[in-house]
Amino acid sequence: MAVGEVLFPVMHPVAGIALGTTCAGIKPWVRDDVLVIQMAEQATCAAVFTQNAFCAAPVHVAKSHLSTQPRWLLINAGNANAGTGKQGMQDALQSCADLAKSVQGRTDQVLPFSTGVIGQRLPVDKLSAALPNAIADLALTHWDKAAQAIMTTDTFPKGVSTIIHISDKPITITGITKGAGMIQPDMATMLAFIATDASISQDLLQTCLIDAVAKSFNLITVDGDTSTNDACVLMASGCSAVPLITANSAAYVTFSAAITQVCQQLAEAIIRDGEGATKLIRIVVKDALDEPEAIRVAKTIAHSPLVKTAFFASDPNWGRILAAVGRAGVVAMDLDAIEIYLDTVCIVRSGGCAEDYTEAAGQAVMNKEEITVTVVLGRGAACQTVLTCDFSYDYVRINAEYRS
Amino acid sequence: MAVGEVLFPVMHPVAGIALGTTCAGIKPWVRDDVLVIQMAEQATCAAVFTQNAFCAAPVHVAKSHLSTQPRWLLINAGNANAGTGKQGMQDALQSCADLAKSVQGRTDQVLPFSTGVIGQRLPVDKLSAALPNAIADLALTHWDKAAQAIMTTDTFPKGVSTIIHISDKPITITGITKGAGMIQPDMATMLAFIATDASISQDLLQTCLIDAVAKSFNLITVDGDTSTNDACVLMASGCSAVPLITANSAAYVTFSAAITQVCQQLAEAIIRDGEGATKLIRIVVKDALDEPEAIRVAKTIAHSPLVKTAFFASDPNWGRILAAVGRAGVVAMDLDAIEIYLDTVCIVRSGGCAEDYTEAAGQAVMNKEEITVTVVLGRGAACQTVLTCDFSYDYVRINAEYRS
Repeated sequence: MAVGEVLFPVMHPVAGIALGTTCAGIKPWVRDDVLVIQMAEQATCAAVFTQNAFCAAPVHVAKSHLSTQPRWLLINAGNANAGTGKQGMQDALQSCADLAKSVQGRTDQVLPFSTGVIGQRLPVDKLSAALPNAIADLALTHWDKAAQAIMTTDTFPKGVSTIIHISDKPITITGITKGAGMIQPDMATMLAFIATDASISQDLLQTCLIDAVAKSFNLITVDGDTSTNDACVLMASGCSAVPLITANSAAYVTFSAAITQVCQQLAEAIIRDGEGATKLIRIVVKDALDEPEAIRVAKTIAHSPLVKTAFFASDPNWGRILAAVGRAGVVAMDLDAIEIYLDTVCIVRSGGCAEDYTEAAGQAVMNKEEITVTVVLGRGAACQTVLTCDFSYDYVRINAEYRS
Repeated sequence: MAVGEVLFPVMHPVAGIALGTTCAGIKPWVRDDVLVIQMAEQATCAAVFTQNAFCAAPVHVAKSHLSTQPRWLLINAGNANAGTGKQGMQDALQSCADLAKSVQGRTDQVLPFSTGVIGQRLPVDKLSAALPNAIADLALTHWDKAAQAIMTTDTFPKGVSTIIHISDKPITITGITKGAGMIQPDMATMLAFIATDASISQDLLQTCLIDAVAKSFNLITVDGDTSTNDACVLMASGCSAVPLITANSAAYVTFSAAITQVCQQLAEAIIRDGEGATKLIRIVVKDALDEPEAIRVAKTIAHSPLVKTAFFASDPNWGRILAAVGRAGVVAMDLDAIEIYLDTVCIVRSGGCAEDYTEAAGQAVMNKEEITVTVVLGRGAACQTVLTCDFSYDYVRINAEYRS
C-alpha cells in the first residue's frame, strides 16, 4: 500500500559495478534473498552506518573492512545477524571469507550487510552454499533484481538512476534502497547502495556521502525507531571519461548535488512505502534558530502518534500539531510569532486558530494523499524538511504479525 | 478495554472539600461534564501544570490565580480551550468570574481546568448557565460523580482513597484523575484532583506535590504526546484533628509517602485505561548512571511503536527492545554489561541473546496481561520505573475517530 504511483525507473548500468542475486532460502521465500556487488579494482567506496549502540555484527565487520579498499558487498535479507553476540561476529566474518574464497579475494575486501529479524543466528551454511550462483549471476544490468533481493517488508523495489554531465562528459549515478519500518535512520537508511562511474578519492567520496545522507536519509522517519543494521554505501568505479573529481572544484559541486538528489529520491521512496502508509507528509520548519532546532520540531511532529493517526483519518485536528510543536523543547518560544500551515491554508496564527481558517479548507487539504505541514517559528533563518507518513491500522497489523 | 479489573473504590469524604457536578451540554453527551470543587476557607492548594509551551488558556489563568489562596476549582470536559488565543483567555476568565459571582467570591479565587478537543472556542454561555446546578449539587460525598464528569476518552472513572494515621489521628486522602491518550504528562497527568483534610502550609504542600508527581504521573506514557492542559491539584482543607504538618517532621514523611502512593495509583489507573491498551508494561531500568539516564532509556522503550505493537501481538520479538535500548543515547554503553529481562526470563546477556533463553519461556511471559521489562545497564546505582501500555488497532481507531 504505497503512497502515490511508484514506478521502478530505467536503471542505467554503471561501468565497473556488477550485481548478482540468488535465493539462499534464508527465509521460506520463493525469491532471491542474496545480493553480491562487485566493484572494479580501482573503485573507491564510502559508507555510513547506524548510530544504534547495539549495531549488528555485519555493521562492525563492514566498518572495519571499509578502510582496506573493499571490492565486494555481500547483502542478505531475512536475517539481520543483530543481537547475536560473538557468534554473530564469527558468522559475518565467515560469510565474507567464503565469498572471498570464491572470487580469489581477501576477506577484508568484503563488506557484509544483513537485514531482517533481529536475534536469530545467521544461517551461514545456506548463505555460503548460494554464493556460486550469485557470482555466476554478476552483470552490470541486474539493478532491478538487486532491488528486489534486498526487500523485507517493502511492498515495492526502490531505485533511482540519473546521468549528469561534467565537462560535457556523462557520469552515471544509480542506486537502490530498502526499508519500510524501524525507520529513523539517524545516519543512513536501513540499506542503500549507490554506484557511480565517477573517479573520486575515497576521502572526498566519504565527505560527499555524509553530506548527502544528512540531507536525505537522516530527514525521514516512519516510526522513530533506528535499526541496528542501517547502512548506506556509495561506490565510485572510476570508469567514466570524466577526470578525477577533486575537492572544491566545480565538478565536485555538480557531482555532490546529484548524489544528494539521488539520496533524497531514494529516501522519499522509503517513506512512500512506510509500513501501512496511506499519506506522504512533508514537515517544513522555517525561521528556526538553527538547523538542529528545525529538525527537532519537525521530528516531534513526525513522531506524534496522535498527529499520525489524525492524518490517517484525514481529520484536520490541527490542535495535535500545535501540541506537538509545544512540547518540542524550543526554549523561550514566542507563541504569537508562530504560524502553522496545512499546504497553503493557515491554521495557527497569534497563538490560536487563524481567524480566516475554515474547517472546510483544512478538510480539503487533509483529504489529499500528499500534504505539506509548514511551521514558521519566527526565531531565525534555519529551515529543514522532514518526510514522514501516517499511522494506520496496517502499521499495527504489519508489526504485530511480522514474525508470524 | 481496560487492562485488569479496575473497580472504583469506596471514596472517603474529605472534610472541607465539597464537589458538585452537572451537565452543561458542552458536547452532545447525556452525562455530567462540569465539576465544581469548593475548599474550606483555611485550605491550602498546590498545583503543577503541563510543560507544553502551547499551554491552554485555563492553565495560564489557573497558574496566575494559584498564588491568591484559591477556594474553587471549575472543571469542564469536552472542550480544552487550547489553541484559542486571546479569546480563549477571555473565556477562561469569564467562566471564573461567573462562578465567583454565584458564590460571592473573587474571580482570582477560582482555578479553571478544561479537557477535550483543542482549538474550538469554549461555550462559556452554556458553562455559566450550568453553574447554579453544579453549586446546588455541592456535597462531600460526590467524588464518584466528579470522577465521571471529567472523563473524555476514558473508559472507566479513576479514583483512589486512603486513610493514614499520624499521631494516632486519621488523615484522609482522596483523589480522582482522568486521561487515556496524549499522555506523557512530563509534569502532571491530564487532570488529577487530590484532596486531604491535613493541615499543611501552601509551600510545603507544593513541595510535597512536586515530589509525588515526579514519582508517579511523570513516569507514565501512553503515546509520548504531552497535552496542552495537564494539571494536577492537591488540596489540603486543614479540617483533620492532626496538628499542622511541618517540614522535616516525621508527620511530613508519612504524609508525603501517602500522597506519592495515591498519585502512583492514579497514574497506574491512567495506563490501565490507555487508549486501546490490552497490556500494562512496567519498564524498570536499573544500574543507570543517574535517574535521567534511567528514565531516558525506559521512555525510549516505552515510546517505540515497534516494541508496543510486539506487546500487542504477544510476540517475544526482543530484538526490538534491544534496538530501542541501543538508540536511547547512552554514551559509551558497554554492551557486554547489559542484561534485559521479560519478567524473570533473561533475554539479552553479553551483547546478544542469553544462552539459556528459549522462545517458549519468552512467549509464556508475553502472553500475560501485565509484563515487567527490566534493563540492567551496569553503569551505576540509579533505578527508575516507567509505566506504559501496548499499541493496538484500537489506539488507531480511537484517535482516527476522536472528533467524528
